[in-house]
Amino acid sequence: MNKITSLFNIKYPIIQGGMIWVSGWKLAAAVSNSGGLGLIGAGSMYPDVLREHIQKAKKATNKAFGVNVPLLYADLEEILQIIVEEGVKIVFTSAGNPKKWTAYLKENGITVVHVISSVKFALKAQAAGVDAIVAEGFEAGGHNGREETTTLTLIPAVRRAIDIPLIAAGGIATGRQMLASMILGADAVQMGSRFVASEESSAHQNFKEAVTKVQDGDTQLTLKEFAPVRLIKNEFYKELSTLYKTCPTEEQLLALLGRGRAKKGMFEGDLVSGELEIGQVAALIDAVLPVHKIIENIVKEYNAALMETKPL
Amino acid sequence: MNKITSLFNIKYPIIQGGMIWVSGWKLAAAVSNSGGLGLIGAGSMYPDVLREHIQKAKKATNKAFGVNVPLLYADLEEILQIIVEEGVKIVFTSAGNPKKWTAYLKENGITVVHVISSVKFALKAQAAGVDAIVAEGFEAGGHNGREETTTLTLIPAVRRAIDIPLIAAGGIATGRQMLASMILGADAVQMGSRFVASEESSAHQNFKEAVTKVQDGDTQLTLKEFAPVRLIKNEFYKELSTLYKTCPTEEQLLALLGRGRAKKGMFEGDLVSGELEIGQVAALIDAVLPVHKIIENIVKEYNAALMETKPL
Repeated sequence: MNKITSLFNIKYPIIQGGMIWVSGWKLAAAVSNSGGLGLIGAGSMYPDVLREHIQKAKKATNKAFGVNVPLLYADLEEILQIIVEEGVKIVFTSAGNPKKWTAYLKENGITVVHVISSVKFALKAQAAGVDAIVAEGFEAGGHNGREETTTLTLIPAVRRAIDIPLIAAGGIATGRQMLASMILGADAVQMGSRFVASEESSAHQNFKEAVTKVQDGDTQLTLKEFAPVRLIKNEFYKELSTLYKTCPTEEQLLALLGRGRAKKGMFEGDLVSGELEIGQVAALIDAVLPVHKIIENIVKEYNAALMETKPL
Repeated sequence: MNKITSLFNIKYPIIQGGMIWVSGWKLAAAVSNSGGLGLIGAGSMYPDVLREHIQKAKKATNKAFGVNVPLLYADLEEILQIIVEEGVKIVFTSAGNPKKWTAYLKENGITVVHVISSVKFALKAQAAGVDAIVAEGFEAGGHNGREETTTLTLIPAVRRAIDIPLIAAGGIATGRQMLASMILGADAVQMGSRFVASEESSAHQNFKEAVTKVQDGDTQLTLKEFAPVRLIKNEFYKELSTLYKTCPTEEQLLALLGRGRAKKGMFEGDLVSGELEIGQVAALIDAVLPVHKIIENIVKEYNAALMETKPL
């Protein structure tokens, strides 16, 4: 047992990121049933949809699972109330200030983890009383920090700044990458992209297959004026990129962006004009696999890599 | 002995990057004398200056050392001829196509290593006949790839694509980071920023001290229209950043950039208007140390981290 496996009462220090459009009850329950910690991604769910996913997850697993809540969520109070009412025991908060809501969640017996991308915000989250921190590097998919600090440099910097348990995220999909992250100072890893390309994720099959075809250099962090996001360089990205060359105003960018692009791409499978959020590590993901197999492969590779590494 | 220590006949698989304005004979010889491989950075040297540095390095060490040559160098033929004449046995090439010069160098008994930042160019370098590859991630200082692939994702991707020995670079300054890089598939590491802040580097004392004060988020990759470069966010960077907001032409950027900015910052110590090239990992570098101590610390931390890591 390490700090994270005992905090969550799980077998392996492997957490599945709570992503929009991708991680519903089916994925979360599969990860928890395979020895990791599954998270339902509330970011793309209306309150009643989230309640349904929590209820289904409770039926599908008797292990610990959690919910990821972006703190900029429009219906935030209602979402948090549902989480408390449904007896969820673990909440990962992201995209916002943990100061306001951490105490409320902890008073309701919930273990709280906050996602950050810099030492400064790690210290703020620790001061807000969270139980653990996810430090997410530049290579991560979806929304991302402004400082562009990569996992390899962020994890050691956060590790020496904070005392509470630390979860590494961004660029991790294999056992070797997990082992490397633990050596850098993490107590666990959070993986997003790897679980997008799982049988149990609710990503559209087109998107899952697109993820397995990504090569290095095929994603880019963009839309830095808003919340920076890493996307596959598809036709939509190229349109965006062409617009950027004209030095657009924020209004022009928002006009091109429109609404529902992420749903269109990730959930409805429109690979041309949808927004396809994924991490750089997709370059190492070659097949859509069942969750139990993903976790089994990671554990096997982790142990084998550790065994074969020799001192200097 | 591993593939890299036997290729170069060195004790530790630690290579000091051949950087402009920072790595002359004194630094290279100190690294080689401490069990690593030191590289003279030819990029900022006139041909006669390079010859002098090679001659001094030969007197200062009887161990292997090498020269880093940017292939876009104006006096390239003259530089390579000096390297051959002076009997240098190891050349790292960067910033250009290795196809043209690798055979010439190898015919002259030189071990050739090429620096890349993507799988595509790793394959091209391997096809050109180089003996090893440096794969350098987005977090690296100085000039950098366009794809923005980080070390954590680049090393495994290059590892599975090529058969020849692989050196990881970008974001590596500590024993734990070195161990993580080896676990990702590297046979050795190349460190730049860590050796900038060494007693033996020819960086200006002001620049060395500035490096020890860098925190996460204090550097940024910029000037992507030309050769992307990672800089400390000083006054000069801020001017550049303000100009970028106006959607400048390349001519306007070049006019602000002027000539000799890197020399002014890194060698002459002008922290305000000089260009200060450094990696993100400077956030983990707190002191200017002698080279032998840097290498000793890295080896000690590497072995201790490996020893304390347990299987899952």
